Amino acid sequence: MLLIETVRALEAWKREAGRKGRSLGFVPTMGALHEGHLSLIRRAKEENDLVVASVFVNPTQFGPGEDFERYPRSLERDCDLASGAGADVVFHPDAREIYGEGHSTIVRVEGELAGVLCGKARPGHFQGVTTVVNILFNIVGPDRAYFGQKDAQQSLVVQKMVRDLKIPVEVRVCPILREEDGLAMSSRNAYLQQEERRQAVRLHKGLEKAGEAFGAGERNPERLLELAKEEIRKAPLGELEYLELLDGRDLRPVERAAAGDLMAVAVRFGKTRLIDNILLEGEMERRTPCC
Amino acid sequence: MLLIETVRALEAWKREAGRKGRSLGFVPTMGALHEGHLSLIRRAKEENDLVVASVFVNPTQFGPGEDFERYPRSLERDCDLASGAGADVVFHPDAREIYGEGHSTIVRVEGELAGVLCGKARPGHFQGVTTVVNILFNIVGPDRAYFGQKDAQQSLVVQKMVRDLKIPVEVRVCPILREEDGLAMSSRNAYLQQEERRQAVRLHKGLEKAGEAFGAGERNPERLLELAKEEIRKAPLGELEYLELLDGRDLRPVERAAAGDLMAVAVRFGKTRLIDNILLEGEMERRTPCC
Repeated sequence: MLLIETVRALEAWKREAGRKGRSLGFVPTMGALHEGHLSLIRRAKEENDLVVASVFVNPTQFGPGEDFERYPRSLERDCDLASGAGADVVFHPDAREIYGEGHSTIVRVEGELAGVLCGKARPGHFQGVTTVVNILFNIVGPDRAYFGQKDAQQSLVVQKMVRDLKIPVEVRVCPILREEDGLAMSSRNAYLQQEERRQAVRLHKGLEKAGEAFGAGERNPERLLELAKEEIRKAPLGELEYLELLDGRDLRPVERAAAGDLMAVAVRFGKTRLIDNILLEGEMERRTPCC
Repeated sequence: MLLIETVRALEAWKREAGRKGRSLGFVPTMGALHEGHLSLIRRAKEENDLVVASVFVNPTQFGPGEDFERYPRSLERDCDLASGAGADVVFHPDAREIYGEGHSTIVRVEGELAGVLCGKARPGHFQGVTTVVNILFNIVGPDRAYFGQKDAQQSLVVQKMVRDLKIPVEVRVCPILREEDGLAMSSRNAYLQQEERRQAVRLHKGLEKAGEAFGAGERNPERLLELAKEEIRKAPLGELEYLELLDGRDLRPVERAAAGDLMAVAVRFGKTRLIDNILLEGEMERRTPCC
């Protein structure tokens, strides 16, 4: 596996690796890889001849006072893990490599999709995401790109950008991976104190309760949200930022719950912000995640 | 030559035309082709194996009350001319083909470059341009794209977008073509009444006067602008919108004129808005247009 740190070197690799007819999968990450990321890399390797994983802690998607500085960085370990999962290249550019001097071009998905949930809680976040993903797509030039359903809204926003701008990349959204007790895997879990970690499982438990009630026929959004909230309240160290039930395709409000709807939650444990979500399942799924 | 009207058909053409190793030049236009456009197509044909010219009157780059509705449309003639100049394909999509339902993704170059001159006079114009050019680049996937120096600011803004987003397209900016009396060729010249057309030559004459004075050693921006303005005043039917001397690379103000500076003018004759510009020439050119 190759570690590549410049755009020029990546371009040279693409020429030398003889892309002619060989498909390329791309897994953009911020590093601090866990099994969730590795499942994306493995999937990319199954579906493509070559796989590039990027490790780039993108400054423009962090707001002031967020955890950009302390975000976990572990490049050597990341390279070992990515290599083990099948990556051919880890692309680890410097911020100056991505954002040249005087960089001033932005890519933004406007409207509700990027404005609700994390978009409301973290102004500018998704503009940072779409801009950097656009740049990385242009540099890497993949056939397919892999994102995690853990960041459900991010996946939807990236898919919207790809569709609207007609970017010739197939976006694949892959299932959430969870710890044994159900906590969604996240690089930020490492921030959690022992008791916070113990309580954090309530996010998943709450979503699960709502999902079960939906499976048993409950269609009232308020009641489904209340069921989830009951569980989440059992984590007194957590401060609920949002808990919403929205149409899983466009994140519009729903009057009656339906299969394919997304219940998404964000909770702060001290400075640590955790998110999780569940897609309501049923016979008439309105939206099927790809993998 | 092929006339292609859908994204899907263009993709099929790209596959069938066997792009393998064949270079592709792209000339985006709004149609109503004149010799200026044809010079871009010829240049593209010289430098590439295949040439796609698009004809798309892009609604999002027109402001309210501008000439979107009455912008000249002459597809059949455009196809003949493009074909004669060497285009392999004229891509003429419907607006719905470019902007799908609920389209909400924008690409914008922020800051001075897109905010001065036409950016100030036509709010939202360059956002419309960068968004549609980005989409067209994604659809066509060219190696090189050709723009006219006539729209100097547009060329700079597109080049900035390409640089900032690392779009793998080489942008070529080609010289202004002029009528015999010096009027810069433009599809909008067709709007001019006889007397307006007669007076419109003053834009060029004014820029030329300033260019000559610069050649003779004048370096004071105010005096150079005054020389140009003296000529432009001889077109009493024209209403001056802007006349500015800026750094030709980044459109920042200059205190002292230098080779490579851009003098740009916009004048309205009734509802018809004309623009023109000149790059100051000298021994120490700070910026060389590519072709």
